[in-house]
Amino acid sequence: MSSLDNLKSSIISQFGTPCPVIDLDVVESNIDKAQRICDNAGVANRPHIKTHKSPLLAKMQIDAGAKGITCQKLGEAEIMADAGIDDILIATNIIGAARSGRLASLQKKLSLKVCADNKVSLSEYSKAAEAANRPLDVLIECDTGQKRAGVEKPGEALRLIELIIKDKWLKFTGLLYYPPLDGWKDTQIFHDDLTKKLNGLNLKPKIISTGGTPNFANIGKLNGATEHRAGTCIFNDMMMVEDGFAQISDCGFRVFTSVVSKANDNRGILDAGSKTLTSDTGGLKGFGYITEYPEANIIKFSEEHGFLELKDCKNKPSIGDIVTVIPNHVCVAVNMVDKLVMVQNNKIIKTIPVAARGMLV
Amino acid sequence: MSSLDNLKSSIISQFGTPCPVIDLDVVESNIDKAQRICDNAGVANRPHIKTHKSPLLAKMQIDAGAKGITCQKLGEAEIMADAGIDDILIATNIIGAARSGRLASLQKKLSLKVCADNKVSLSEYSKAAEAANRPLDVLIECDTGQKRAGVEKPGEALRLIELIIKDKWLKFTGLLYYPPLDGWKDTQIFHDDLTKKLNGLNLKPKIISTGGTPNFANIGKLNGATEHRAGTCIFNDMMMVEDGFAQISDCGFRVFTSVVSKANDNRGILDAGSKTLTSDTGGLKGFGYITEYPEANIIKFSEEHGFLELKDCKNKPSIGDIVTVIPNHVCVAVNMVDKLVMVQNNKIIKTIPVAARGMLV
Repeated sequence: MSSLDNLKSSIISQFGTPCPVIDLDVVESNIDKAQRICDNAGVANRPHIKTHKSPLLAKMQIDAGAKGITCQKLGEAEIMADAGIDDILIATNIIGAARSGRLASLQKKLSLKVCADNKVSLSEYSKAAEAANRPLDVLIECDTGQKRAGVEKPGEALRLIELIIKDKWLKFTGLLYYPPLDGWKDTQIFHDDLTKKLNGLNLKPKIISTGGTPNFANIGKLNGATEHRAGTCIFNDMMMVEDGFAQISDCGFRVFTSVVSKANDNRGILDAGSKTLTSDTGGLKGFGYITEYPEANIIKFSEEHGFLELKDCKNKPSIGDIVTVIPNHVCVAVNMVDKLVMVQNNKIIKTIPVAARGMLV
Repeated sequence: MSSLDNLKSSIISQFGTPCPVIDLDVVESNIDKAQRICDNAGVANRPHIKTHKSPLLAKMQIDAGAKGITCQKLGEAEIMADAGIDDILIATNIIGAARSGRLASLQKKLSLKVCADNKVSLSEYSKAAEAANRPLDVLIECDTGQKRAGVEKPGEALRLIELIIKDKWLKFTGLLYYPPLDGWKDTQIFHDDLTKKLNGLNLKPKIISTGGTPNFANIGKLNGATEHRAGTCIFNDMMMVEDGFAQISDCGFRVFTSVVSKANDNRGILDAGSKTLTSDTGGLKGFGYITEYPEANIIKFSEEHGFLELKDCKNKPSIGDIVTVIPNHVCVAVNMVDKLVMVQNNKIIKTIPVAARGMLV
């Protein structure tokens, strides 16, 4: 038996399937690669922990050189802070979480960095900071083409920054960008315009943040950027393979799943469905890549069933076979389970909790 | 302020957003309706708990008259058994879970009903039953058109049943059908053929199970059916509204979410994205129904952002407003969180754990 076959036997006897597995060597190599990319570009690394939601992995990123971490939910930040991580940026408007009193509670414990693109967020942040009796560091989220959140004009950013300066409970700390892959020139134009306006007020933001794993291809191209936040690169997935950032061998997360049914030679059923791998296609065809059967397609999910199409397969899996699936989008797949099995050299080391998942806020 | 506005204030101050909320009155009414439908059709009710994954709600279903429950994962069955529920059908091939030893462990504690459509499953079930020293009740899963799992011919079912009969650790208990909405006639033909074959062997299955909430429209149409398993009906969702089974007012699960950003009047961002409501569209347009703004569309998700399109709205929500979203597919949305907030008459009663979620197996 190959060592992968041995691992499959160990997984099935200790955990059963479906089983989400991360490979420590690949994860470590991915962490180092991200750090090296940031180092080479001369920007600090602030990895986005939304991908793994694990304090243990966040600490590995910090030990490798990351300046701090990025979270997308207050609940994630709470878990990371409990684990002793103290440089945390929450990269989104968190109005609901602020109003719950939990932002103030966390800000009492440590100095957070939060983001805003509107006055309501600023007002809630101010109240939370006052309740915590500690001013909040605020970044203004700027949209240079994603059409998601963020102010769309430098003048709007300026008006919010002026509000921050007038507010004794808020500190203007920086600018948060998430440039589209082909939008870095536009981001530079936006940033230069805003910088000129800020110079007029004698303001120099401490943090200019860019984001995204695919944007590692552009890192350093924004003159003025001080740090980068990327999430997916710790595990990678089929989106990153499609993007060209990663190879299959760079994918550190796989779901071990059993073929549990085969009505005929050309179709089968996996015991991993949308409640394991999610319905998120990441814009790709199908629902993940089966490493042992690259010609097989997962064409559909129900909640606990993956629909296998095998007509293009030379060799076909049989009922009872275990296959390993790399998801299209790893950030949402990790989020489905309470723990991950960590392996190294095809041997099980331990399980680690996905500690920051399942939070309401 | 309306009582819903008061509830929104309570939700935001106690929990923040996004917050998954179930309405006890609607849930109780839905449980009663499902029971009544089964009673009227003369079949037992065996609700599928994959939708709520909550022992508390499962017990409410049993108290209302359900004979037992249906699970889709061994991990769900373990949680339900721990809570004292002892009539459990696991409605799928669970090869991986059987090989982990956990099927045997649970079977030691109580007599489970499991399903198979192939010899490998039967072999694993036999080993698990022997390890538990208690024979397993086995239903044969039959596919009459879903093209998912299940034997496609009565003769195949018969061959598996013959294997069961020869195995001292397995007991042939019944047949599991999941007829397509328009496939009940074909199911009857399949069932009559198989019944004739079984009569020849002097075998009479105790359980003939049909399934699905939309199939309540057909319940009773399969001559011979003894029980029905439906999941979604406890909460309902936009798929059930589209199907005609439910009205908006029958939807007992909503996500309370804040508008956290608005770049302009015609678009906005909710703090509920694919990690809250999931990428599962249920085949419908958009990603859920906003009860306060029926003309608003959730056109896209990123992980923690819902992309609002507001151009067709007469009244438009502002930043900081809380809206309530009914998901397209409730079973996968409930599965995203560790707890649900239960309300009655727009007042918070308590939180209940989604105890059986996050399981690997």
